[in-house]
Amino acid sequence: MSTTKAESMTRPEWRRDDGDTKLVFGVAGVILAASFLFMRSPVTETQLPEPQIVTTYDYDPCCGYPCQNQGICMAWPGNNYTCDCTGTGYYGDHCEIPTWPAWLAKKIKPDPESLHNFLTSNGWLWAILNRIPFIHKKLMTYVYLSRGDMVDSPPTYESDHSYITLNAYFNESYYARALPPVPEHCPTPMGDKGFKELPDVDLLIKKVFMRKEFIPEPHETNVLFQYYAQHFTHQFFRTDLKKGPQLTKGTGGVDVSNIYGLTENDRQALRSRVNGKLRTQVINGEEFPPYLKDVPDITMDYPPNVPIPENGKFALGHPFFALLPGLFAYATIWVREHNRVCDELFKIHPDWSDEQLYQTARLIITGEVIKITIEDYVQHLSQYKLRLSFEPDLVHGTRFQYHNRIHVEFNHLYHWHPLIPDTLEINGTNYGIMDMAYNTLPIFKHGLDEFIHSMVNSRAGALTNRNHAHVLYPVLKNVIESGRKLRFQGINAYKKRFGLRPFTSFEDMTGDKELAADLESLYGDIEAVEFYVGLLAERPGPSVTPLTMVNTGGPWSVKGLIANPICSPKYWKPSTFGGEEGMNIIKTASLEKLFCLNMKSGCKNIAFTVPEGTP
Amino acid sequence: MSTTKAESMTRPEWRRDDGDTKLVFGVAGVILAASFLFMRSPVTETQLPEPQIVTTYDYDPCCGYPCQNQGICMAWPGNNYTCDCTGTGYYGDHCEIPTWPAWLAKKIKPDPESLHNFLTSNGWLWAILNRIPFIHKKLMTYVYLSRGDMVDSPPTYESDHSYITLNAYFNESYYARALPPVPEHCPTPMGDKGFKELPDVDLLIKKVFMRKEFIPEPHETNVLFQYYAQHFTHQFFRTDLKKGPQLTKGTGGVDVSNIYGLTENDRQALRSRVNGKLRTQVINGEEFPPYLKDVPDITMDYPPNVPIPENGKFALGHPFFALLPGLFAYATIWVREHNRVCDELFKIHPDWSDEQLYQTARLIITGEVIKITIEDYVQHLSQYKLRLSFEPDLVHGTRFQYHNRIHVEFNHLYHWHPLIPDTLEINGTNYGIMDMAYNTLPIFKHGLDEFIHSMVNSRAGALTNRNHAHVLYPVLKNVIESGRKLRFQGINAYKKRFGLRPFTSFEDMTGDKELAADLESLYGDIEAVEFYVGLLAERPGPSVTPLTMVNTGGPWSVKGLIANPICSPKYWKPSTFGGEEGMNIIKTASLEKLFCLNMKSGCKNIAFTVPEGTP
Repeated sequence: MSTTKAESMTRPEWRRDDGDTKLVFGVAGVILAASFLFMRSPVTETQLPEPQIVTTYDYDPCCGYPCQNQGICMAWPGNNYTCDCTGTGYYGDHCEIPTWPAWLAKKIKPDPESLHNFLTSNGWLWAILNRIPFIHKKLMTYVYLSRGDMVDSPPTYESDHSYITLNAYFNESYYARALPPVPEHCPTPMGDKGFKELPDVDLLIKKVFMRKEFIPEPHETNVLFQYYAQHFTHQFFRTDLKKGPQLTKGTGGVDVSNIYGLTENDRQALRSRVNGKLRTQVINGEEFPPYLKDVPDITMDYPPNVPIPENGKFALGHPFFALLPGLFAYATIWVREHNRVCDELFKIHPDWSDEQLYQTARLIITGEVIKITIEDYVQHLSQYKLRLSFEPDLVHGTRFQYHNRIHVEFNHLYHWHPLIPDTLEINGTNYGIMDMAYNTLPIFKHGLDEFIHSMVNSRAGALTNRNHAHVLYPVLKNVIESGRKLRFQGINAYKKRFGLRPFTSFEDMTGDKELAADLESLYGDIEAVEFYVGLLAERPGPSVTPLTMVNTGGPWSVKGLIANPICSPKYWKPSTFGGEEGMNIIKTASLEKLFCLNMKSGCKNIAFTVPEGTP
Repeated sequence: MSTTKAESMTRPEWRRDDGDTKLVFGVAGVILAASFLFMRSPVTETQLPEPQIVTTYDYDPCCGYPCQNQGICMAWPGNNYTCDCTGTGYYGDHCEIPTWPAWLAKKIKPDPESLHNFLTSNGWLWAILNRIPFIHKKLMTYVYLSRGDMVDSPPTYESDHSYITLNAYFNESYYARALPPVPEHCPTPMGDKGFKELPDVDLLIKKVFMRKEFIPEPHETNVLFQYYAQHFTHQFFRTDLKKGPQLTKGTGGVDVSNIYGLTENDRQALRSRVNGKLRTQVINGEEFPPYLKDVPDITMDYPPNVPIPENGKFALGHPFFALLPGLFAYATIWVREHNRVCDELFKIHPDWSDEQLYQTARLIITGEVIKITIEDYVQHLSQYKLRLSFEPDLVHGTRFQYHNRIHVEFNHLYHWHPLIPDTLEINGTNYGIMDMAYNTLPIFKHGLDEFIHSMVNSRAGALTNRNHAHVLYPVLKNVIESGRKLRFQGINAYKKRFGLRPFTSFEDMTGDKELAADLESLYGDIEAVEFYVGLLAERPGPSVTPLTMVNTGGPWSVKGLIANPICSPKYWKPSTFGGEEGMNIIKTASLEKLFCLNMKSGCKNIAFTVPEGTP
């Protein structure tokens, strides 16, 4: 690489003309690769990088992201740079020429957008394929592996360095990063594209994010889905707010800490110490989590300056779940489910200790969470016609890596507040978002079952631009400002990182002339559009989220679910779960069963969509 | 599994006669498997376990470890049990019948003892094989993968539960465990074998461990090797002594925290903030680590009640390295090497910040540590004639798991105090072990180079029984007592876990009638011999350690080295290490270069063996 710097200095300057370069290189790459095919043995991915070309800039030349196909740019003295193409499948000065296996793979593999369209349509074809076990298993294996491959494991970057460090791996206080921060001292905040300053956040929010009128989610998504997302993801999105958006207190995966607590102290505090069960209390003849006053070792995020009665404060697995009754409802259902599983285990293991019942129930609950998340939640989210299934043994013995770290971009991406409608109607009463803050009264006034049915029957908002409720302004402002503090690369850099075609223009992104014009006036260059802004500004697609969001979030999601230890070969066996009975609880779990087995007066229409005929 | 409990209750009782069962099942297994081969499709590993046989005991039936081939025993009411054979390659009531792929693999694969003998002899054959790159690479790939496969990753057990829990994975304060603790309430401390009480520790130490006269290591091993082992392994053996032997403060791998410090605070304290370098000072014209008084943020393990002058206390990456001048010598050499690497990086990257030089040098040092550990240290330790090489790309894209956790058994196994001779002669002066405790004077009196040459020229002790120096009595007593507290299974359980043939008798283990008689009087049953005792009581073999120690330690060692993030596909490329120059520092690192580039007056005979002709 750098050994050839001296000679490379004398080679002709490579001209950057970002628009058409890709196409030219594409065609050249095809011809070159084809000729290699016949001329000599294939260029392997482990070859040393070729001598590099050098250009001269007045600033860190890596600010312009000159390396293609995930090659790594490295700056050298005299404003020079080289691209390290190791392992990319490409070579050449800018990693622009495919090796022949990469060329072949590119030819054979459908582009992600076509694939996505195919997966979300052709219902009749999928109805057949879903029923042929051999083919269905192959497809699911492909889903698991291809999504897993997209996530660097072990992780490579954190937010405090724009290059690889040991910290990225060994310091688990950091969220991981898929792409490193934009280097310091670049001409513009996004590298060398766009204006010298990013747009004013308030103006940006006003033009791009604020809800004018409620846009309902077009796939019949309900509020039960919205709260599932929030309850599920908070187990691993545990930003250490006091220290900064780059740091987390979480363990990096689906650790069910949202149900049981994050630390051993919290977990102990929430246990009843009888037959493995969690502490509960009976209110109005129903089982609920204990009052906070009864579990002094737990800290909840109830605001000190808001008067909340003692019987309105509860001790839950996550301090954030104080915020909204929807989260309290999920917390209650999962506590009941844990205790129900303990009863089932006790039937077959009456001689087991409280400890063994608790630990084994927790393993089963983890399996239920993963099963329901894949088969109900992601199934609805993606709108795939391919039936998604939880079959961890499909990737046993493959290259799949059983370790996960949460990426800070995944956290940002998951700010799905447009889902939240302005009001929730419960039994004829309308509750605004702020009416429900830190307030469990709606649940106790109308009953938990009634509240759950309200979530089922209420439409969520569309996950798109111009659909943020006004009261969520501060949350939104914070996520955009954090993204800037973390020096995120632009939306197109992330599209390329996840194998997606970058946006070519603002209209290509939005499909909406007015919004495109607004964004162009704010950013000047499509390459300068911020990550979170781009995710939500994208035109709606066949999934609940726009295309880029589902294709970047998907890999993080699938990887996080299947890399869970319970999915690994030594865990995924009946004895781990107390025998076949326990494993079958996982294998037969569903959203519907979760609610129907744990509601007092009976359930109806439990699903992530509003019932048919809902206006 | 348990669904068939009722009917299985009626099946005839399975009689346990441990001596010959294995042979009978072995032959039966072969015949059965062979007939399956022609009668029906192969029994796959994912099949549900067969109906289980039930026996009746007066205690937890799993105390007898009735399940073969790593099947998992699960107790049921009425003193019943079942074996979960999932993923073992075996089936039957006790996982004793091989599926045909398992049967075939067993037929084809050489047994580990023969393989070990083959690897450590036939020098002429290896001289040829080592020179054929294609074959050599295949062999190294096999070494990496086969060792990696032996280590459960993700880990399954910790020391507080005798069954799988989520804690084993998510609570990284625990050391992992290859085998769970012996269940509570078993008839004997080792399950159901041996006496009701384990032997008196003092008597055991006296009969089995104490040195009568110094036994030199028979492979010419020197004290430089002994201190390498101690310096290297303390980066990941960081038992949280205040909390218990089951807990660690470490990060789970080769994190070079022994050089740089474990926490970000320690690391910052040890940095000079100039050109990436670590803090040093010049004493007698040579570069040394700083005095402890000059780095107040570092804590070292100097005993408060022993008077040590201020200029005898140093700030090092590991608090334990206060203990012995050999550790201080290694610490000094590595600090010098880090600063030397920073100089090399600065030559090619004069515009890099202190931070980038530091972080990149740390990545290079990690690579050097792994390279030297595999190619010099493990090569000598194993006495393999196969040339061991550090080629991380060999397992890219395979099932190899890039995550590691330190196992508490690995920590115990690595108590290699027999290596320590009673005295070290430096330039005509003899220093006893206690003369050197917390004392760096020998280094400053004779000079570091002279001290290093003393380590080179002094023979280490043989890693065998009856060779512990008397002053190390408390250390030894502590490791045996910790093993009991952790309820380790016996040596034969670990032999089976790592695919080794269990010892059949005390004489089979020791090869020494007198020692065998002593041990038999202490334990009564070969199945009851403790893990650490068995490791050291085993007859010497062709490696520096006895056979069981090298074949259980080997997997943990190789896994820990190759699972390091720098070995993973996204890290292992020139740009990670500052370019080809940086990566070449790793690729050409050796023990000899490490010392020779960092000694003032020149080096001679740097190796892990005493020079030829040493008496």
